[in-house]
Order: sequence, then structure tokens, then C-alpha cells
Amino acid sequence: MLNFEYYNPTRIVFGEDTVKRLDELVPQDARILILYGGNSAIKHGTLDEVMNALGQRVTVAYGGVQANPEYEHLLGALEKIKEHEINFILAVGGGSVIDGAKFLAAAAKFADEDKWKILEGSQITAALPFATVLTLPATGSEMNSGSVISYRSRGLKRSFSSPLVFPKFSILDPSKAVTLPERQTVNGIVDAFVHIVEQYATKQTGAAVTDEFAESLLRIIIRVAPTLIAEPENVQARGDFMWAATNALNGLLRLGEVGDWSVHGIGHQLTALYQIDHARTLAVVLPGVWQYKLEAKQAKLAQMARNVYGLQGDDERELALAAINKTEEFFQQLGVGTRLADYDLGKDDVKALVQNLEKIGATSLGEDKDIDLNASREILLSRL
Amino acid sequence: MLNFEYYNPTRIVFGEDTVKRLDELVPQDARILILYGGNSAIKHGTLDEVMNALGQRVTVAYGGVQANPEYEHLLGALEKIKEHEINFILAVGGGSVIDGAKFLAAAAKFADEDKWKILEGSQITAALPFATVLTLPATGSEMNSGSVISYRSRGLKRSFSSPLVFPKFSILDPSKAVTLPERQTVNGIVDAFVHIVEQYATKQTGAAVTDEFAESLLRIIIRVAPTLIAEPENVQARGDFMWAATNALNGLLRLGEVGDWSVHGIGHQLTALYQIDHARTLAVVLPGVWQYKLEAKQAKLAQMARNVYGLQGDDERELALAAINKTEEFFQQLGVGTRLADYDLGKDDVKALVQNLEKIGATSLGEDKDIDLNASREILLSRL
Repeated sequence: MLNFEYYNPTRIVFGEDTVKRLDELVPQDARILILYGGNSAIKHGTLDEVMNALGQRVTVAYGGVQANPEYEHLLGALEKIKEHEINFILAVGGGSVIDGAKFLAAAAKFADEDKWKILEGSQITAALPFATVLTLPATGSEMNSGSVISYRSRGLKRSFSSPLVFPKFSILDPSKAVTLPERQTVNGIVDAFVHIVEQYATKQTGAAVTDEFAESLLRIIIRVAPTLIAEPENVQARGDFMWAATNALNGLLRLGEVGDWSVHGIGHQLTALYQIDHARTLAVVLPGVWQYKLEAKQAKLAQMARNVYGLQGDDERELALAAINKTEEFFQQLGVGTRLADYDLGKDDVKALVQNLEKIGATSLGEDKDIDLNASREILLSRL
Repeated sequence: MLNFEYYNPTRIVFGEDTVKRLDELVPQDARILILYGGNSAIKHGTLDEVMNALGQRVTVAYGGVQANPEYEHLLGALEKIKEHEINFILAVGGGSVIDGAKFLAAAAKFADEDKWKILEGSQITAALPFATVLTLPATGSEMNSGSVISYRSRGLKRSFSSPLVFPKFSILDPSKAVTLPERQTVNGIVDAFVHIVEQYATKQTGAAVTDEFAESLLRIIIRVAPTLIAEPENVQARGDFMWAATNALNGLLRLGEVGDWSVHGIGHQLTALYQIDHARTLAVVLPGVWQYKLEAKQAKLAQMARNVYGLQGDDERELALAAINKTEEFFQQLGVGTRLADYDLGKDDVKALVQNLEKIGATSLGEDKDIDLNASREILLSRL
């Protein structure tokens, strides 16, 4: 097992009927920006519930955060923060809204007028406190310190992280997820699954606890996925998935392991250029990365075949290939296309995607930093 | 799954050669009480290493903390804290030293002169910051907010907890554990194992993630136990066990579950009256509690038989009984006596133990609060 450091001060409040706890969790004198996404938070009453719980506190709502939160749209929220002397941000939604809140928390205290620098690696030294009410389990953003922001007019999608942007608390009420459209449920399943394997399916480092935790979460996600789709109102299944998705990316699964994250690195370009749902980009890229890195990942993929898919056998390579096939099948059974052609993309698009990787300097991806532009091209061409 | 709250702000620094990180982790102006146990911290050089890392900072060492940290001995450390205007405590050792540090952190800021009141349920409102260098994996105290203190002259052993006594950080260097005597290694294994099952082997609440995490840790502990004994210097095995033991009691395994803790409640009296090693008291009491509560625990014990011991079968009761037998065998294979007779105790001692339970008001133990004094007597008599 490799040396590691772990720190995660986010308080989790999990369960049905927990939104009302906002009243004790948010400071009485908070001046709150409530950040949310589309109309579902209004339609299903979550926003009302939040407002009721916050009582007499000053609140300013800012909606319209879309999947892949957009830099220029968030700058509008930053204006509100200044105008209303906001000192607390509450994200009500899924990973996109929460990632947006993290950016705003940092940007509000960032001296430079060019806030995009935060996404270009400038260190932040302060942030507004913020918290979340999670309605869409998927990204783990509710319990980590990372954020991904898109700059659509420039075709960019970049991330930043800082211990200063851990949520103070996150309310996880699984009953809030029962109204999710199937497409978002499915995206959440794929997203959480890939978060796990980006950390797990790399080298054998012998981190027993982390490996077994990862395998546990993969088994649970595979097990509850059909229920989430067949019985969207099953709160038990929503809860199991919600907590699994949080643990998939709260730091626990990277401990003592080497992360890959090339699937995200390449997938982000599919979203940046073609606005494909984040999760679906992962489903397209993942089998290609695993095939390309078969030799390096063989031991761990064979372990996954045994411990996650329950397969047996002596041939490590066969088992590793079976894990890749099983995983692609899992995505397909969820109705998620795993080929570029499923999204009407072809060879020319691969060229554009690789150019984008070059533009952002993504020339050494993966756990061995050996996925250069040629390798990314090969991976993408294998997914036509 | 039941509603839950989770909060754990302790920073973990894990791996070989991490003691030197104290220099960046402890404030430069800290005036530090270094609390430690016996001579092993001196003999094996850990204390020297700690002092070197702390450089020019003011340090006062206070040793002699024994297994089951003793109230009256700790009051001596409290004098040192006042005398030297200590503002930071560093525990170097295992769970006893760390529990002692938690008590001191609270006692130093506790207004009442009678510090035992902290163990009698008085809320604390402030605590000194403290941190740990773990040398003996077992209790999980390095990443939780609980503490157990003994008051030997009064035959008492009680616990307290408060979010104010989470360690600021804990350094977990598995190579520090290679010099442990076999007896302490074995005690650590049993202690961590029972921490897990006190949270797991209760009711079926359907908390999938927590259940699978618990089963993962149980499997790992069973798997590495023989290596820990046969190859005490195997740092990989020490590391796997160390991180498993921390996760066994850092809060993760109680999420969405109902805890039992009657095994600890009854076992504590065996230590208070007869100074039996904490872990060994658990090994004696646990099979008795499981037998007594067989009906209520049957589903979970059968699940344990399947998922931890790899047993198969349709008869839930048979499986549950098999889990009890397998667990007792595991303890015995470690050389741990699981009967009162193994510690030269008999019927008269059971009477004294039950009187002690009455004295501290432990009259409704277990996940159903139905283990009264008669039940405790029956459980103890079944372990003669």
C-alpha cells in the first residue's frame, strides 16, 4: 500500500425528512445564496422546503445551473454575491450545482478579477463557507473538495480542488431522488461506477481495505441499478445508491492506490466539444482505456472479474478481458451507448477531440502518465 | 437504512517514515505534553524520533500510561499541563494513551475540580487540541471522539465522547507496529474484530454500504491475522491491519445501523474488577451475547456466515450458529481464552460482575436495550 493522507471534514446528514435540519446547521446570521439548477427543484417542492427551513434568514436564489456548470453563467451569481453581501452559499441539486457552488465560494474571495485563473491552477487562499442539499446522487461532489467547470464559448472544461472548498455539511435525503428522470438516474449510476474504477482498476498496490471497499461499492451499484430503474420510487434503493455514490468519490477509494483519471480527461473533451452527458462520455472512453492499458491493468481487472463479477478462472488475461466486457455490457444494459457512433461522431471528431486535449496540455494521462496524444487518438479510434 | 449523521475531521497521515511530518503538522508555537505508555516507545526509538521532529518546540513528556488508562495517574499529567502552560497534547502509543490524551484535553478545560464528572456524563464545552502517533493498532481511538478511562481504586471503567476530542491529526506508521509483543498484536486483532461486529451483528437495517464495508474489514482481519503472528515484521500486513482497525471504529460502520455494545458494557467489568486485557474480555463475552440474542441477531449472523466465512446453506439458524462457532474458533486460534475459566474466574465472580453492572447503571444493554442484570448474569454464566 502506498503512503497516503486523508482529511474530510464534511458533515453528512443522511436520511428522509432531513432538509428541515438546515435551521440548526446554517448560522442564524447567514446571508445565503441558494444556487440551483432547472425547474425540478421548484416543481418538486425542494426549494420551498429549503426556504421554509431557513426561516427569516436573508436568501437570494440563483437558478439555471446546467449540467456541466458554465463559467459565464456562474459569473452572474458572483454579481449577486457582491450585491447582496452574501456570506454563505447553499447548493440545492446535484454535482453540477455543487461544483458551481465550490467555484463561487472560491471566486468570491479570489483577488484577481479573472476568476478563470482558479481553473488554470492558481491557488486559492480563502473561500466562502457553503453547504449542499443533494437531490441527484452521482458525482460525490457533496463530500469532496473538487469541482469541474466548463467555459463553453472557449470549448474548455477544467477542474480545481482545494481543502477550502469542502462543503461544511451535506444533506442527503434519498427521497429527493425519486423524481429524477431515468436519464439522470442512469447517468448517475455510470458516473459513480466510473469514479470507483478510475481509482481501483489501475496498479496492484496491495491496499486491501481500499480494494475491498471499492469492490463493495461496485457490487452494490450493479445490484441496485435495475431496481433504481424499475422502481424509481424505491427509497431504500435510492439511499443505498446515494451513499455508495458519495463514498465513490469522497477520498476513501484513493487511499494507498494510484489513480487513473484518463477516462475523465479524455471524456471531458466530448462534453466540451459536443455537450454529451458527462457519464456517457465515460462509458464511451472507459473500455478503450482499459483495452489500451490491458497489460498494466491486467492484475487489477482480473481481481475485479473475480471479486465484483464473481467470475472464476486461472487465465488472468481472459479474466481481465471478461471484466472489460462485463462492464461495457453493464453500461449497455442501462441503455447507455458505449461507442462514438452512438453519438453520431466519427473519425473527424476524433481529430478535434485530440486537438482539444493538446490545447489543454493533457499529454500524459493515466496512472503511468503514458497516455499521450497518440495514445488518446488510438483509444478514441478504438471507440468509433 | 436508518437515518444517520457522520462527521470526522481527523486528518490521517498514513505510511512508513511519516513521524517526521510532525514538524509541519504541529503549530510552531505549541507547548506540547507528550503522553506515552511504557518503555517500548523509548526502547524502539519512537519517542526520540518524535522529539527530533518537533525540533525547538517546548515539550514535556509524561509516561507510564497503562492499558486501561487510569484516572488517578492521568491527574498527574494534568498537573504538568497547568505547570507548563501546555497548549497541545501529543499521544504516542495505542488506544490507552490516546484515550488518556482525550481525557486530558477535556479535563484541562473543564471548570469543575472533579474531573471524573466528565466520565459521568457532564458535557464538555472546550478541549485542548491534540494529535496522535499510533504505535499499536486496535482501538480506532486515533480517528474517533470516544475515550474509556478506568478509576481502579473505585473499580470503575467508564467512557465519554465529544466532537471536541477528535484528534487534529493521527500519524499511522505501520512499521512502528512491527516490534509489538505477540500478546498486544493478538489483543489488537480481537479488539478491532469485536468493534466491527458490535456495529454489524445486530438488526437487519438494509444499510448495504455499511454492511459490505464491515464484511470487508472482517474478511481482511481474518486473512491477515496469521501473517501478523507468523511474520511480525511484515509491514504490508501491519499496514492492512492498521488501516482496517482504524476504519473499524471511526464512525463509518455505525452509519444506518443499530449498535449493540453490550459485549463492551459487560466486558469492561472484567477489566475493572480483574484487570483482564480488554480484548480478552470481549472474546469471553461475545459468544454469550450472541447466543442469548440468537433470535434477534439470526438474520445478520447468517449473513455474516455467508459473506465473511463463506458458508452456504438454507437454514438461517444453522448459519447463525456456525458464525458464532467460527468466531469463537478464530479467537481460540489466536490463543485467546473465550471462557471465564480460562482466567480462573467462576460463579462467585459472576455475582461480583453483575453487582458492578448494577453499580454503574448498566441495566439495559444491547441494540434492543433488553439486556438487564438478569440477562447479563445468564450471559456470564454461559461463559463459565
